[in-house]
Amino acid sequence: MVNGIERPLDVLNNAKGREVLVQLKNNRQMVGTLLAFDIHINIVLDNAKEIIDNEEKRSVGLTFLRGDTIIFISPAGVAKRE
Amino acid sequence: MVNGIERPLDVLNNAKGREVLVQLKNNRQMVGTLLAFDIHINIVLDNAKEIIDNEEKRSVGLTFLRGDTIIFISPAGVAKRE
Amino acid sequence: MVNGIERPLDVLNNAKGREVLVQLKNNRQMVGTLLAFDIHINIVLDNAKEIIDNEEKRSVGLTFLRGDTIIFISPAGVAKRE
Amino acid sequence: MVNGIERPLDVLNNAKGREVLVQLKNNRQMVGTLLAFDIHINIVLDNAKEIIDNEEKRSVGLTFLRGDTIIFISPAGVAKRE
Amino acid sequence: MVNGIERPLDVLNNAKGREVLVQLKNNRQMVGTLLAFDIHINIVLDNAKEIIDNEEKRSVGLTFLRGDTIIFISPAGVAKRE
Amino acid sequence: MVNGIERPLDVLNNAKGREVLVQLKNNRQMVGTLLAFDIHINIVLDNAKEIIDNEEKRSVGLTFLRGDTIIFISPAGVAKRE
Amino acid sequence: MVNGIERPLDVLNNAKGREVLVQLKNNRQMVGTLLAFDIHINIVLDNAKEIIDNEEKRSVGLTFLRGDTIIFISPAGVAKRE
Repeated sequence: MVNGIERPLDVLNNAKGREVLVQLKNNRQMVGTLLAFDIHINIVLDNAKEIIDNEEKRSVGLTFLRGDTIIFISPAGVAKRE
Repeated sequence: MVNGIERPLDVLNNAKGREVLVQLKNNRQMVGTLLAFDIHINIVLDNAKEIIDNEEKRSVGLTFLRGDTIIFISPAGVAKRE
Repeated sequence: MVNGIERPLDVLNNAKGREVLVQLKNNRQMVGTLLAFDIHINIVLDNAKEIIDNEEKRSVGLTFLRGDTIIFISPAGVAKRE
Repeated sequence: MVNGIERPLDVLNNAKGREVLVQLKNNRQMVGTLLAFDIHINIVLDNAKEIIDNEEKRSVGLTFLRGDTIIFISPAGVAKRE
Repeated sequence: MVNGIERPLDVLNNAKGREVLVQLKNNRQMVGTLLAFDIHINIVLDNAKEIIDNEEKRSVGLTFLRGDTIIFISPAGVAKRE
Repeated sequence: MVNGIERPLDVLNNAKGREVLVQLKNNRQMVGTLLAFDIHINIVLDNAKEIIDNEEKRSVGLTFLRGDTIIFISPAGVAKRE
Repeated sequence: MVNGIERPLDVLNNAKGREVLVQLKNNRQMVGTLLAFDIHINIVLDNAKEIIDNEEKRSVGLTFLRGDTIIFISPAGVAKRE
């Protein structure tokens, strides 16, 4: 069980500085270290890697992602992916 | 019949701590324990499992889902699914 | 003719507690008892059944539907469907 | 020529109680008697009939339509259709 | 050159009472006399004719068009089309 | 390098009276003289020409374009295109 | 690690005057020097080059991009691309 999650953004706040899996629309995913987010769910990942159709495609480093293309963000998803 | 549902969000409030089925756009579904939601229907699931075309694809653990990709959320749908 | 419909939401208000047919985008439909709605047309159905391409697919029970995937809601459509 | 149309919603106001043709996205149309509308162009049709690819598919009776799936509404379009 | 166009809506204001070509999403076009518009670019056309894939499909008469399906509106486009 | 661009709309302001290339969604482009724009990026082009799949399709003259179908606007893009 | 990133827009602010990779919806990318941005993530690129399906297609020079077609912006992505 997870304690201390009262609002959805608490999950993102707890995940700062940790690796997260970000599922985007159109079968794109990104993994990277979550540095920042805002209420529009715009986020910043460091050491971001793009994954298309489950293949690692590109390292894009420090990256700004617009919230409206994001389906879900999973801090645990990175470990589960390996 | 269901008592005490006056506004749509009452259903989500009652479902906190219980397993829910979340239907997303593009034939994706997720099941997991509903921990939190907000007025944009951003939600947090714990022990989330992704289901694509009725196959369980991935365990993604604690997950933040953006509201705008959600079609419906069903607390009873998980049991019905089994 | 129908009396007492001055604003669109009056139809939904009159339909509370009755079965409705909900047409969603992407050829999905749901039937169920309308329990609640809000100004975003988020709705709650009880005893909801999902229908895809005119086939009854799943019973999902008590279900929260996000307004932005809804095309139309018809209280009479359920009877007409039978 | 048409008199007394100063704002777009005047057309809908004049069409209350009359049959209208409603073109929806995705090649769906509906015909029915316009009972009510709001500023989001949510509308209510009575005796609504759904038309897909120019074939009359279903009578759905009294129906609430969400504005964001509507392309156009034509009071004269029903007569022209016959 | 065109004088007196300081804001985009000035073009629509000058076009009132004249025939316009309206390009909609999904390869639909309409021609008709512009009677009214609002800040959402909802418009009213009189004597509207629908054109799909460059073929005149239907006369729909007086018609209300929702702004969010409109790509462009051209007062001169009608003449150019002939 | 370009001087005096502090906010994105400064580019559009500087481009008034000049030819611009406008890339729309769905592989449509337009070229024309930028006459006006607003904060929604609704714009007016004079002497507008429509280009679909890199072929010049139609001259539509003075044209109002809704902002939400625009991907980018390039004042230099017209010269580069030739 | 990256210091001084507290909000997502800090990344864009730090990237002003540097080359960035911009991933757009529909498999389009642009590279160019970031000159300006606003809270809608409308941006201005100088010396912009359009890349479709990983091929450099066009130089469009100074270009205004609307925020709502942007998936991500990566200052480091340009170097990684080479």
